[in-house]
Amino acid sequence: MPSDKPKITELGEKKLIKRLLSRSQTPRVKNLFLNKIPIESLSDDAALIDIGENYLVLCSDMLMRSSHFPVEMSFRQIGQKVVAVNVSDLAAMGADAVGIIISMGLPKTMLVEEFDDLVEGILKACDKYGMALIGGDTNEAAELTLNGTCIGTVKKENVLMRSGALPGDVIAVTGDLGLAAAGFEILGCDCQDELNEESVKICLKHALEPEARLKEGIILSKNGNVSSATDISDGLLSELGEIIDANESTIGITVHENWFPIPSEVFEIAEITHKNPYDLALSYGEDFELLLTISPSEFESIKTKLKLKKIGFVDSTGTIKMIDKSGNTKVVTPKGYEHLN
Amino acid sequence: MPSDKPKITELGEKKLIKRLLSRSQTPRVKNLFLNKIPIESLSDDAALIDIGENYLVLCSDMLMRSSHFPVEMSFRQIGQKVVAVNVSDLAAMGADAVGIIISMGLPKTMLVEEFDDLVEGILKACDKYGMALIGGDTNEAAELTLNGTCIGTVKKENVLMRSGALPGDVIAVTGDLGLAAAGFEILGCDCQDELNEESVKICLKHALEPEARLKEGIILSKNGNVSSATDISDGLLSELGEIIDANESTIGITVHENWFPIPSEVFEIAEITHKNPYDLALSYGEDFELLLTISPSEFESIKTKLKLKKIGFVDSTGTIKMIDKSGNTKVVTPKGYEHLN
Repeated sequence: MPSDKPKITELGEKKLIKRLLSRSQTPRVKNLFLNKIPIESLSDDAALIDIGENYLVLCSDMLMRSSHFPVEMSFRQIGQKVVAVNVSDLAAMGADAVGIIISMGLPKTMLVEEFDDLVEGILKACDKYGMALIGGDTNEAAELTLNGTCIGTVKKENVLMRSGALPGDVIAVTGDLGLAAAGFEILGCDCQDELNEESVKICLKHALEPEARLKEGIILSKNGNVSSATDISDGLLSELGEIIDANESTIGITVHENWFPIPSEVFEIAEITHKNPYDLALSYGEDFELLLTISPSEFESIKTKLKLKKIGFVDSTGTIKMIDKSGNTKVVTPKGYEHLN
Repeated sequence: MPSDKPKITELGEKKLIKRLLSRSQTPRVKNLFLNKIPIESLSDDAALIDIGENYLVLCSDMLMRSSHFPVEMSFRQIGQKVVAVNVSDLAAMGADAVGIIISMGLPKTMLVEEFDDLVEGILKACDKYGMALIGGDTNEAAELTLNGTCIGTVKKENVLMRSGALPGDVIAVTGDLGLAAAGFEILGCDCQDELNEESVKICLKHALEPEARLKEGIILSKNGNVSSATDISDGLLSELGEIIDANESTIGITVHENWFPIPSEVFEIAEITHKNPYDLALSYGEDFELLLTISPSEFESIKTKLKLKKIGFVDSTGTIKMIDKSGNTKVVTPKGYEHLN
């Protein structure tokens, strides 16, 4: 008998997380000050624990074979990805990485050599980010399920939050948009023969071996002038909405379609797979670049060092607007971008 | 085409975790001292992070619907269990609980009211243990999958480890053995009508609403004389093996069959379900009591306060031995207990 009761799919992930965390704040969090370990930030990429001069930053992300690891991804690449995805949440807060705990749900049919490859990928990524694997457990599961809990530290005065963007700030990203999405499109199509070999290689690398912008996050946090930041693992437009939602004052954002750093490979692959290249670049996610806001003068002084790309400005309109190539302005809603074209 | 390559099921969970963590120690962990956040304890119930006078204790446990939550368990009870299981790892180290991050893999068919019940159970348990829900994320999954990452603190000199038991120490547990296992047997049988109503209630309560021994762990750690401890979520005999394995010197353990605190309900249910009551009490797990070693004189001074039950003594024989009711001694191997009878 089908039920008319609402299902969680009608709410979606962002609303579910808000529903989960909104009920947990006061008085429960206030009590923690009695323990002399104040916890802050229930709505950011990670939880902050006050350990004196620094925050200890904790984040946790669960990845499933069916949703997050395409069949073409090797076990070594899966191991690298679970670390990168978690480190990206630290990078978004400007924290340095200390360690990761990995809980594993493993299918019974998994081979020991596959397990070893997975661990090798995890350790390789830990080395890359200068951190340690500090714990883990294994369970039997219907599908491969990996949960990473990442620990980092950041000086209190340097922590980057989603809140804090100011009207007039430049909005920038740390790198190209859409390459990972194009890579996933290549995996899903039967069209590799029609594509430039080098383009395929670049896009698959971004899709199968994503890298967290840990160093960039640390440089941005030490700079001290970044007013807000997040990673764009869930897609650029969605994260722009988060930057607006997290702000205590009403802010808005205007982006310029022409300014988005979308490489030619994304247009090439979008054409052959009949996708909108702007959807791939702005709504798909999986890029793991950082999105930040910073004053125009500070942007000019830091942009070369980090290869930052300006994509727009913060304003106080309360909406996200996009100025297209013809100079026309359209209001964008993060989930509604596909309706624009 | 079936492969003859070894599968992970041939290794089992304990060996897999060792395989995972053995490759992650030095030099990766040593590097962390450069970050001034030394990490210790890769083989205990949790990772320790040095934050000055205290350790921050971190542990992570993943639970799956098919393995850990029987169909009779309500969503509220599931929420309580995921917190209790994680808090139990803190209790094993004598740490106080600060907060928990819950990552969720949720089936598409889940109702919003089921999600709310799950969250209510999580928050109820957080209240009970004086901690906060400090973060979380949600994903789509084939089966309900919950990963908890629990954060606690303990004074460095008070931390309880699996290592450290000394020959001559008393081995004790904080409570009854086998009630949860008997509860799971009741759920699996078609025999509730044959059982005493009160017995069913007690056993189901232990199976469906397990409680972590957080207060007991804190009292034991403050006592300062507990030489080693762990929780017995994986079964008493298996954990006795862990206490031996973790020790730097060769130690052994002798337990007395007559001394195990196995309530009459366990014998009653074992008889009706044709199980060995000692298997339920010693090998099944899910009891979440603490197992500890302490000098005989200190045991006498603390046993009443915590209702500790002595089950045997530490020796230096390198084996686990059991003295049965007739006074005969048998060598026990943790996984081989079922061969004893």
